[in-house]
Amino acid sequence: MPYVNIKITREGGTTAEQKAELIDGVTTLLARVLNKNPATTVVVIDEVDPDNWGIGGLPVKAFRHRQNSGEK
Amino acid sequence: MPYVNIKITREGGTTAEQKAELIDGVTTLLARVLNKNPATTVVVIDEVDPDNWGIGGLPVKAFRHRQNSGEK
Amino acid sequence: MPYVNIKITREGGTTAEQKAELIDGVTTLLARVLNKNPATTVVVIDEVDPDNWGIGGLPVKAFRHRQNSGEK
Amino acid sequence: MPYVNIKITREGGTTAEQKAELIDGVTTLLARVLNKNPATTVVVIDEVDPDNWGIGGLPVKAFRHRQNSGEK
Amino acid sequence: MPYVNIKITREGGTTAEQKAELIDGVTTLLARVLNKNPATTVVVIDEVDPDNWGIGGLPVKAFRHRQNSGEK
Amino acid sequence: MPYVNIKITREGGTTAEQKAELIDGVTTLLARVLNKNPATTVVVIDEVDPDNWGIGGLPVKAFRHRQNSGEK
Repeated sequence: MPYVNIKITREGGTTAEQKAELIDGVTTLLARVLNKNPATTVVVIDEVDPDNWGIGGLPVKAFRHRQNSGEK
Repeated sequence: MPYVNIKITREGGTTAEQKAELIDGVTTLLARVLNKNPATTVVVIDEVDPDNWGIGGLPVKAFRHRQNSGEK
Repeated sequence: MPYVNIKITREGGTTAEQKAELIDGVTTLLARVLNKNPATTVVVIDEVDPDNWGIGGLPVKAFRHRQNSGEK
Repeated sequence: MPYVNIKITREGGTTAEQKAELIDGVTTLLARVLNKNPATTVVVIDEVDPDNWGIGGLPVKAFRHRQNSGEK
Repeated sequence: MPYVNIKITREGGTTAEQKAELIDGVTTLLARVLNKNPATTVVVIDEVDPDNWGIGGLPVKAFRHRQNSGEK
Repeated sequence: MPYVNIKITREGGTTAEQKAELIDGVTTLLARVLNKNPATTVVVIDEVDPDNWGIGGLPVKAFRHRQNSGEK
């Protein structure tokens, strides 16, 4: 009965099919590796606004801009 | 000063009164069982889109459909 | 199929019976208020070292010491 | 590579600049205190509806109302 | 730069190799399904004491005992 | 009344003083940026075994080894 929480940024919209693929993939992985019962494996996907996600001390869009413009 | 996070699916809308009842119930439970101070007991309720909630390797609506149609 | 995470400080040891009471209490509350199925209600209790829990800008023991000594 | 999750109530809207300031502040703090690498420090800010946030056994707005009206 | 948290019960010890397999599997899944960059995909595995994990209103060991003895 | 969760790897032991510094720093930051009340700002620090922390598809120690040996 594992609980898995996947947090990703909300950008252009992850489709229902992709979410279903993540749910299936994680559940299958836990069944294969740890013999966990799919029937009680819970997966929750949180989609986070890019303004609310930071890396490298910057909001993610500013971080990527800096990366693409070759700055440190 | 416990912190309690309740994650439920967003389906038809849990009312403000129901959320208040959950907050009161959890806070009272922690005060009764562990003598925790209600004044510093924090409860956060997360409502999750059904597409983002998986069980049995399926998004919850597909899982229920399978349950209701008697499939394994 | 709610998921509930309860975080409390680890102080002198919450007994297995108390944890069972919290699990039962939260599950019953969600069944009563939101008609959630106990069979798929997951409750996880995290016990946190007091050094790792802060409130009022202080680790919890220092916070309580300040409270008891009457300082603001 | 720390992961920091900040949960705050959604009230009137925390600005993108304020979120950027929180991301920068937390990342700088972890670099200064624990020498953590900003490039792999992840910060996620969750904004929670006030109806979904409880303290003192009440939803936060009711809690504040009680506080302001001088009730216990 | 997804963040994935996997919570499982601590029972007999999940090996380092199994944890590595989970980390690799989840990272590969997110790269394949959502084209996420493995270099910034963070996976954290929490192992929870069985007394601290509840399902069906019972601590997990009591729940399994009830299941095995054929009770509702 | 923000809730902040800081997850870091447990490596050689973060001292109580460093944890206190993180708690103070985060609480001060939230007071300064969002005028949040320190008295109800909760900070929880989780220390995670390196085997349980993955990045780049590898457990963190293997990831660092790869980084140091100059491999992609």
